Amino acid sequence: MPVWVMRQAGRILPGYRKIREQVKDFKEFVKTPALACEATLEPVEVLGVDAAIIFSDILVVPEAMGLDYEMVESRGPLFEKTIKSQKDIDALRVGSIENWNYVTDAIKLTRKELNDRVPLIGFAGSPWTIFAYMTEGKGSKTFSIAKRMIYSDPKMAHALLDKITQTTIKYLKDQVNAGAQIVQIFDSWGGILSPESYEEFSLPYIAKICDELSIHAPVIAFPKGAFFSAKKIAQLNCNAIGLDWTVDAADAREMLKGKVLQGNLDPCVLYADHSVIKNKTIEMIKQFGSKEYIANLGHGVYPDIPMDNVRYFIDTVKEYSAK
Amino acid sequence: MPVWVMRQAGRILPGYRKIREQVKDFKEFVKTPALACEATLEPVEVLGVDAAIIFSDILVVPEAMGLDYEMVESRGPLFEKTIKSQKDIDALRVGSIENWNYVTDAIKLTRKELNDRVPLIGFAGSPWTIFAYMTEGKGSKTFSIAKRMIYSDPKMAHALLDKITQTTIKYLKDQVNAGAQIVQIFDSWGGILSPESYEEFSLPYIAKICDELSIHAPVIAFPKGAFFSAKKIAQLNCNAIGLDWTVDAADAREMLKGKVLQGNLDPCVLYADHSVIKNKTIEMIKQFGSKEYIANLGHGVYPDIPMDNVRYFIDTVKEYSAK
Repeated sequence: MPVWVMRQAGRILPGYRKIREQVKDFKEFVKTPALACEATLEPVEVLGVDAAIIFSDILVVPEAMGLDYEMVESRGPLFEKTIKSQKDIDALRVGSIENWNYVTDAIKLTRKELNDRVPLIGFAGSPWTIFAYMTEGKGSKTFSIAKRMIYSDPKMAHALLDKITQTTIKYLKDQVNAGAQIVQIFDSWGGILSPESYEEFSLPYIAKICDELSIHAPVIAFPKGAFFSAKKIAQLNCNAIGLDWTVDAADAREMLKGKVLQGNLDPCVLYADHSVIKNKTIEMIKQFGSKEYIANLGHGVYPDIPMDNVRYFIDTVKEYSAK
Repeated sequence: MPVWVMRQAGRILPGYRKIREQVKDFKEFVKTPALACEATLEPVEVLGVDAAIIFSDILVVPEAMGLDYEMVESRGPLFEKTIKSQKDIDALRVGSIENWNYVTDAIKLTRKELNDRVPLIGFAGSPWTIFAYMTEGKGSKTFSIAKRMIYSDPKMAHALLDKITQTTIKYLKDQVNAGAQIVQIFDSWGGILSPESYEEFSLPYIAKICDELSIHAPVIAFPKGAFFSAKKIAQLNCNAIGLDWTVDAADAREMLKGKVLQGNLDPCVLYADHSVIKNKTIEMIKQFGSKEYIANLGHGVYPDIPMDNVRYFIDTVKEYSAK
């Protein structure tokens, strides 16, 4: 069974932190293919993961559509302008290759450097998650501005979601053409919706992307916090489903029959000592079974988790796998 | 079917905002029985809810145990000291009536003023939720400090949870003795745990409180975001279960047989216009059925929701109920 770690190319690694000190900001890092390539390769070399995931950001898409943002140190993204009206939506473009060629260049370079050691994963945010940032303008505990729009003006919300979806499909196809061998869709904020809203405003757009992409590359959908819609998620035209740590493995196997499952160790386990990491990791593998399974965390690794513990998690999976 | 709204005594109301301007800070408000009483009564008079809930804060408990905090305007609670070691836990006291008599005084005064118009609900946070604040020192997106402790030092975590539970049982009994006719336990942060951790570090302590309290007053448990453990939650010795808006009504009726259910409209529905509020509210009631049911939101009302819309939600329930 393969193993990788969401946010494996990040603050937990010394090489990443060194590059980060040298660039002006996070966006310069993302937009410089040689640096993005270097960050993508580091976990393959230092942690021994079985897959690389291109170092980038889900907010490439809104920027490609014409909505610029800055990444504020230790606070997250901040959009100068947010989407409030149909006029704002009309002013957005459906992005194209020239808006994200720094990503496709990074993918090409990374594929060359990887030389088929491990597959390279491309990714995008789900349309709902991107919608949430474009309407809210930043992270939020409640995303009440985004949610206000779906209840107050569902037609307008669908218009924006549709435009984001069109862009995302082009973006992911371009990633595959550049060399991404798998794509993952991160629905980071699906879990703040009710099941009914989730099935109207998030899932159908993920489904569209799966339908368009799955003929080109295997697709992993990661509907974080949205297992309440598991029966509908099972119908996605994708190969694998990522699970967060609140999902019980037996429930997931029962409700998502036929899908490869990916996940779902609580990242906080990696704060504990090696014996706890080993026990919890083996327990997880036994619960999922090692077939049709990709070992991973249930969320991106937190920046202050010791690198050595992340490696120990990966080694534990590999050791178990070798038996 | 009765209806009330979590956080009904808050920023949405003009009387509340007026008192808030007159006091030094939020804590002075909570600690002045006449003001807490006034805030508790306002939604009964202005919104026409079928229950009052004493205006207070879940952080009365850590303060009663000797861990002081301040409420930072628009940011939330901030503890000067956090719990890091067994020594810190040993230094805490199990609180007593003299540590929370401002709450019991407010309850007595409110019961007198209510004159049995509607029942008065008392409340406390769940031990895990209080634990999260006592170890983290403030709100958090990940609560990784709190979770680190449960994985790194489960024995110490249980020692702290046990002391919080002892305090909470005394606190809720004192509220009932003072006149609270129902008590609600808010497990605001149970949903950040894995099912396994939830069933070790949160649910057993809620169960202890239910066992001790249910002989004195009806108990409502609100395990926000933790429906993944519904089968175990169903076994709680309590009368009602509060549900957040991510829970499907039919699933809840099936998995929580025999319990009164409370909830669970997405508060963001109340940003929309009256026709949307009416449709969504009636749809919710039909899904739950109006028996063994308390209409409410799935979370506290957000401070910027128009009061008129909250009242329209309440009126819609009452109108439907009268038919």
